Amino acid sequence: MLKLYSYFRSSASFRVRIALGLKGLPYEYVPVHLLKDGGQQFAESYRALNADALVPTLVDGDHALAQSMAIIEYLDETHPEPALLPGSALDRAYIRALAQGIACEIHPVNNLRVLKYLKHTLGVSDEAKEAWYRHWIELGFTSIEATLAREGKAGRFCFGDTPTLADICLVPQVFNAQRFQIGLEPYPTISRVFDACMEMPAFQQAAPKAQPDAE
Amino acid sequence: MLKLYSYFRSSASFRVRIALGLKGLPYEYVPVHLLKDGGQQFAESYRALNADALVPTLVDGDHALAQSMAIIEYLDETHPEPALLPGSALDRAYIRALAQGIACEIHPVNNLRVLKYLKHTLGVSDEAKEAWYRHWIELGFTSIEATLAREGKAGRFCFGDTPTLADICLVPQVFNAQRFQIGLEPYPTISRVFDACMEMPAFQQAAPKAQPDAE
Repeated sequence: MLKLYSYFRSSASFRVRIALGLKGLPYEYVPVHLLKDGGQQFAESYRALNADALVPTLVDGDHALAQSMAIIEYLDETHPEPALLPGSALDRAYIRALAQGIACEIHPVNNLRVLKYLKHTLGVSDEAKEAWYRHWIELGFTSIEATLAREGKAGRFCFGDTPTLADICLVPQVFNAQRFQIGLEPYPTISRVFDACMEMPAFQQAAPKAQPDAE
Repeated sequence: MLKLYSYFRSSASFRVRIALGLKGLPYEYVPVHLLKDGGQQFAESYRALNADALVPTLVDGDHALAQSMAIIEYLDETHPEPALLPGSALDRAYIRALAQGIACEIHPVNNLRVLKYLKHTLGVSDEAKEAWYRHWIELGFTSIEATLAREGKAGRFCFGDTPTLADICLVPQVFNAQRFQIGLEPYPTISRVFDACMEMPAFQQAAPKAQPDAE
């Protein structure tokens, strides 16, 4: 059986949980607590699976796969239905670009280790750190909302009426926004797509609070 | 003809230039100066193509494609030879994870707009900003070097003896490292792969100093 090393609140882990759910793939959940024991991701045993000391890691047989976006493409190649990157090469480029607008522009800058560096190395106040966090979400959501509105390809989801890689990246980032009291009023398409996603069991069951390590 | 909106020093633009070169695809080069005129990427005309106000953008016919990694996958799907993601689904996941170790872990945190926020909003000194820049490269290169060594899949390049998406991401990041006087001695595999890449015309011709807008 597939094995997922995950932290309930990690949005990269959340993405892979959604993809596994949409594909209907059962998996064993292995919690990695990013704050306890000085960070369980830094344990030798975990670093042997994931040199970055980041979650998630997906273990398939003898193979440990890193990086959530690479893992999701792998799941989509090995279990093609339902397709998470449907359509033509142009459509796929569009969906990947939306996803990367989150996975490469918002999420990395707000990652735990970056926030720790701000606080402990640069001595940034908690207030300024939270403003930073909100800044990158608002900047990213503004451009995603503009793209969704301009391209007119959104249906019930970011691209048409079935969930894709773009929705898989969007939903965990909306959870992050909500944790930091960022209202979705300026982002009506994002807000509508989020609501549609959260009606689906695959998204509900992947949510942080539904995980065995939820606090 | 394809049209690439690019800035000579942008490593995301550099990636796409390498991919276009490896595929042997001619293109028109349209410079977007990220520092002049308060940042030409913020012009209305450019934002109509790229809502993120980031380079690069690839225009193919009537379609403007954003996000370097999505663009490269698009080029690989529409022009399959030579393959930039060769091998099995597992191999592809490995190559994508290496690439994302740069594109999602190092590059976004050191992006121009993040450095500007550090300086202008958080009031970080130039010295601390440079330490930040070096920190994320060193952290990322350490884990990529460990992965390359442990997996034993590197040949002349990161994966075997032909260049892949991993090399396309690695080389521009090595250029960034060199600009900030980060020695490659702790990273012998990265260093060796970099040298092999730079023997190839596609990498040479994509380098910042070979671009029409080079300074």
